[in-house]
Amino acid sequence: MPITNDLTALLGIRHPLMLAPMDTISGSRLTRAVGEAGGFGILGGGYGDRARLEAETAKLKDFAGPFGVGFITWSLAKKPELLDIALKANPRAIMLSFGDPKPFAPRIKSSGALLICQVQDEAMARQALEAGADVLIAQGTEAGGHGASRTTIDIVPAIVDLAAGRVPVVAAGGLADGRGLAAMLMLGASGVLMGTRFYASIEADGADEAKRLICAANSGETVRGVVFDWSRKLLWPAPFTARSLINAHVRTWTGREIELMQRADQVAVDYAAAKAAGNFDVAAVFAGESAGLIHDIPPAAEIVDRIVTEADQILSGKRNSSAA
Amino acid sequence: MPITNDLTALLGIRHPLMLAPMDTISGSRLTRAVGEAGGFGILGGGYGDRARLEAETAKLKDFAGPFGVGFITWSLAKKPELLDIALKANPRAIMLSFGDPKPFAPRIKSSGALLICQVQDEAMARQALEAGADVLIAQGTEAGGHGASRTTIDIVPAIVDLAAGRVPVVAAGGLADGRGLAAMLMLGASGVLMGTRFYASIEADGADEAKRLICAANSGETVRGVVFDWSRKLLWPAPFTARSLINAHVRTWTGREIELMQRADQVAVDYAAAKAAGNFDVAAVFAGESAGLIHDIPPAAEIVDRIVTEADQILSGKRNSSAA
Repeated sequence: MPITNDLTALLGIRHPLMLAPMDTISGSRLTRAVGEAGGFGILGGGYGDRARLEAETAKLKDFAGPFGVGFITWSLAKKPELLDIALKANPRAIMLSFGDPKPFAPRIKSSGALLICQVQDEAMARQALEAGADVLIAQGTEAGGHGASRTTIDIVPAIVDLAAGRVPVVAAGGLADGRGLAAMLMLGASGVLMGTRFYASIEADGADEAKRLICAANSGETVRGVVFDWSRKLLWPAPFTARSLINAHVRTWTGREIELMQRADQVAVDYAAAKAAGNFDVAAVFAGESAGLIHDIPPAAEIVDRIVTEADQILSGKRNSSAA
Repeated sequence: MPITNDLTALLGIRHPLMLAPMDTISGSRLTRAVGEAGGFGILGGGYGDRARLEAETAKLKDFAGPFGVGFITWSLAKKPELLDIALKANPRAIMLSFGDPKPFAPRIKSSGALLICQVQDEAMARQALEAGADVLIAQGTEAGGHGASRTTIDIVPAIVDLAAGRVPVVAAGGLADGRGLAAMLMLGASGVLMGTRFYASIEADGADEAKRLICAANSGETVRGVVFDWSRKLLWPAPFTARSLINAHVRTWTGREIELMQRADQVAVDYAAAKAAGNFDVAAVFAGESAGLIHDIPPAAEIVDRIVTEADQILSGKRNSSAA
């Protein structure tokens, strides 16, 4: 039995499962694959590469299903014209994360698109609701890439209580299977948003080696911090830091962030070279705590199907979830 | 419909809800109250106060229901004779946390008591299973008091997968309501263990002001670290740290732990005096991230009833959990 609710109705999707707009990983191919499978794909708007955004949105023109485009809000504020490019592609929703959505909300909403806001605490959630958010993503620190410090089991019920039914709340952070979807529905979320699980898919625009490393990582083998951002001279505003797989580079610099900043010029040169060479002993694989649950690189449609099938089996009691 | 499973059968309880053996907070009164309400009360063995343990176990002599006694394993290793006092009280189970259970397992199991082991990562879980653990508690960093760094949403499925059905796994950390119980069952746990929620109960042996502060705390207003342990010259072994409400003392010393250790003699005198005076601007209230979900100080039986009723309503679809 499909899991349908306020979120699936609002977004016009079959399953309450969303793709995180991972920077350069969630391209048009992955966005479309998740959408065709009945989830909600969200194209990563990244750090404002105009040519890429134009090319990737163009590839979605003949896609009939609903999809979204996601932006890093503080980055979008530097290139606000990118929002127009995204809106021209007629997305069902724009997702904004990491910054005040107010300056962009009127343009999004007057275009007819929905506004999805990812939040990491109650103050951000209030700000998003005031801006007119139609969906809140409550993101726990377990998430890969950028996020903050509150955990999923803490922040999801807190945001559900704050939203008080006015808008659907979607859980993110540390989720990669149907157990996670079922558990978040119990907490009162209307669905889940997953990044890392879809990174390790055929259609993700990531390096094969990065996908392989996600599959190889055990639970507990990721770290949240500023080392990779500072190694590419990318100073994110507080309270945001990034979670990645643990590699030699992040081991070297964690706890030595002051020196890293002092040596940033040289480190950035070396880091860029290593990244260009595909050397993941140095270059980051941004991934969440759910890496431990991920062991293969299937097509995105298979991921969606597995997750919703497992969640349905658990929720309908067809599969033992220990409660008899 | 009651939630019954492998855990409730093994412990002989009506509800899959356990009381954390909080140091001096989980005394005989609270242990009995949780047990009488159908949960599983676990008396806190604390740091080895023999007179208290004798007095509190004596008070449980006329309690017919099953209960447990919990120890800090590394502390018990210094006073192993306390285990005999606990076993003399005929507990259904001994719970060991924070250290290698192997040296104590044979004595516990040959007494007929079950062995419950709380673990914070996979290596500890393997060690506990090798020692013959009958139940594993997978404790996330959201928990109050001592714990480690992995989060509940990460560690619970990891330990469920590792246990592979051999023993029931119980989830702990950040849980205080029926939503949390229902969510953890979806992840494959057989029940939940709660500390902070029962701290704020009539029967808990804590200061009224501490209970009031838990009710007043919002989500996100706790911190994990070593400040309070070091302020009482209590050096816990790695990887364990303690979560508490944020107060003036922990704000002062967080980030200055080296200096705190250097000044430990004087700080300890001042800290002990403040604690004796009930000054919670200085003294710790050990509490978990679930403090944000806790707003009252009811009898423990009411807490048990609320949680199992809410979980049952969500699980049976009688209450909207967003899935329609």
